[in-house]
Amino acid sequence: MPDSSSAQLSEFDLIRRFFTRPAHKAVLGVGDDCALIEGRPGHHLAISTDMLVSGRHFFPDVAPRSLGHKALAVNLSDLAAMGAEPRAFTLALALPDAQAAWLSELAAGMLELADAHGCELIGGDTTRGPLTLSLTVFGDVPVHKALRRDAARPGDDIWVSGTLGDARLALGDFRGEWLLPEPDFSQVRPRMDTPTPRIGLGMALRGVAHAALDISDGLVGDLGHILERSQVGALLDVDALPRSTVLASQPEPRQLECTLAGGDDYELCFTAPVGERDHIAAIGARLGLALTRVGVITPEAGLRLVDRDGNPSAYNGTSFDHFASP
Amino acid sequence: MPDSSSAQLSEFDLIRRFFTRPAHKAVLGVGDDCALIEGRPGHHLAISTDMLVSGRHFFPDVAPRSLGHKALAVNLSDLAAMGAEPRAFTLALALPDAQAAWLSELAAGMLELADAHGCELIGGDTTRGPLTLSLTVFGDVPVHKALRRDAARPGDDIWVSGTLGDARLALGDFRGEWLLPEPDFSQVRPRMDTPTPRIGLGMALRGVAHAALDISDGLVGDLGHILERSQVGALLDVDALPRSTVLASQPEPRQLECTLAGGDDYELCFTAPVGERDHIAAIGARLGLALTRVGVITPEAGLRLVDRDGNPSAYNGTSFDHFASP
Repeated sequence: MPDSSSAQLSEFDLIRRFFTRPAHKAVLGVGDDCALIEGRPGHHLAISTDMLVSGRHFFPDVAPRSLGHKALAVNLSDLAAMGAEPRAFTLALALPDAQAAWLSELAAGMLELADAHGCELIGGDTTRGPLTLSLTVFGDVPVHKALRRDAARPGDDIWVSGTLGDARLALGDFRGEWLLPEPDFSQVRPRMDTPTPRIGLGMALRGVAHAALDISDGLVGDLGHILERSQVGALLDVDALPRSTVLASQPEPRQLECTLAGGDDYELCFTAPVGERDHIAAIGARLGLALTRVGVITPEAGLRLVDRDGNPSAYNGTSFDHFASP
Repeated sequence: MPDSSSAQLSEFDLIRRFFTRPAHKAVLGVGDDCALIEGRPGHHLAISTDMLVSGRHFFPDVAPRSLGHKALAVNLSDLAAMGAEPRAFTLALALPDAQAAWLSELAAGMLELADAHGCELIGGDTTRGPLTLSLTVFGDVPVHKALRRDAARPGDDIWVSGTLGDARLALGDFRGEWLLPEPDFSQVRPRMDTPTPRIGLGMALRGVAHAALDISDGLVGDLGHILERSQVGALLDVDALPRSTVLASQPEPRQLECTLAGGDDYELCFTAPVGERDHIAAIGARLGLALTRVGVITPEAGLRLVDRDGNPSAYNGTSFDHFASP
């Protein structure tokens, strides 16, 4: 057996050392050709996969603990957007080398968030390669209760959770697009580094919301997916978009850019009948999470941005597309 | 909308164009935050994930159709090793750029194999990055019938399917370790480029075999996983290892290297009671697939390699480890 205290661990050693724990909910966990899980009666299994690439989704020198958290958080966020309860996940990991200290931190950040949501690591693959993480998450959602993108109806309110744009504001500082004073930067940076998946909200919205998704590429683009799949349009009040006090102190065009096109906040955007307003307010109060009405679903196609006076917004940006031509 | 005939497609366009097809078996397929599938009564869901990195698992100039086939095949092979029936898969894809012709071929190779096994693409993620494919596959296996690694028992025969070592023989030619005459190379190359997952065999071995796995890193190392998890040992007859006529015409040391340490053949190695020999022979005849007894499980730990006369084998190699020190 290789010396497991050496900086260069063997593939099998490192997986065992940092990522193998006994399965509690799964029938069979890490270590065989497949994991085995049991279907939950009356439920569908919700499945989502996301890949994070170094230099694209995170900086190459990112703190491994933050990276571990974020890689799982963005996947859990997809379960939240579906109203699913997390159950398990798999991890495929390409690493330029196998450094024990770095892996230990990565595992700690990931498994701490996993434990907080009862989400068990049941399988994976590790290989040498450019730093890349690919996770697949599994959750349970009662039959016919999933929050789908194609379920928005004309007249629905459009809601968003939390505040929008802080992750994009922090990213702009990292990129040198603008410079934030230190206290402001420290306040918004965790929104980029360690986003919070809105699992409790997603589950609470079962049977309440019509359509939902998580905002990963920017509100305009992501809301566009709901509109397209539901074959409806929307009127969005850009002045109603919830923003932190830090973002609210920025120049107006930057606020619009961050709230409308900034991805990576991983808040939920959902639509719900007008009759659910009190119910939704109560959910927000119970969760200690701001839930804000920002627009309305319209029968006619297209997304129209207006200001607080109902005039067309000056904003003219777009959402993030990994392959858009420059 | 961007012009979809342009060489540079948008992320959403390319996913839609090549990888989205209507879901038949899944409740909800590609296009929402999560896919939804229904548990099959009396079955467990088998889940496996594998990541393929350019330059490590395939050559950067690989034919995209072969790559599409292989990426799914190595994942399906894990289902086969568990005795599971394929049902669905997700694909996470990092690409340096989005070239329509290349993606079309990749999708064709992948979806042709998927269709052959009724395995539906239900979700995915696409991003720009170093060429990397990460798939997660899902299959159904009747409760308590999964072929686990920890189920080998002393006295079991050890079996392997097909022939071993051809993929490694082809790889050696690619790497310049040796040179094969053209007809030989053409014969073994498909074993490396387009391996066949032994799905039918895995399902036929339910209730027949004790332990099983697929040989991806080399027989010695992979059989070692069965021995470790089952807390048993094995006696392996290296002269009994099935090999193609092409490999059998190679020098003896190379034959041993390829059959014992060559990965990537994706044949199954399984153990079964002596009383199942006729049954297993009948399965092989029905499937038109050679099934060969190559050794026996022993109560004492350790893997001993012997030749046809029972003398210790001269072979002294090891299995493939992505992070082994040089």
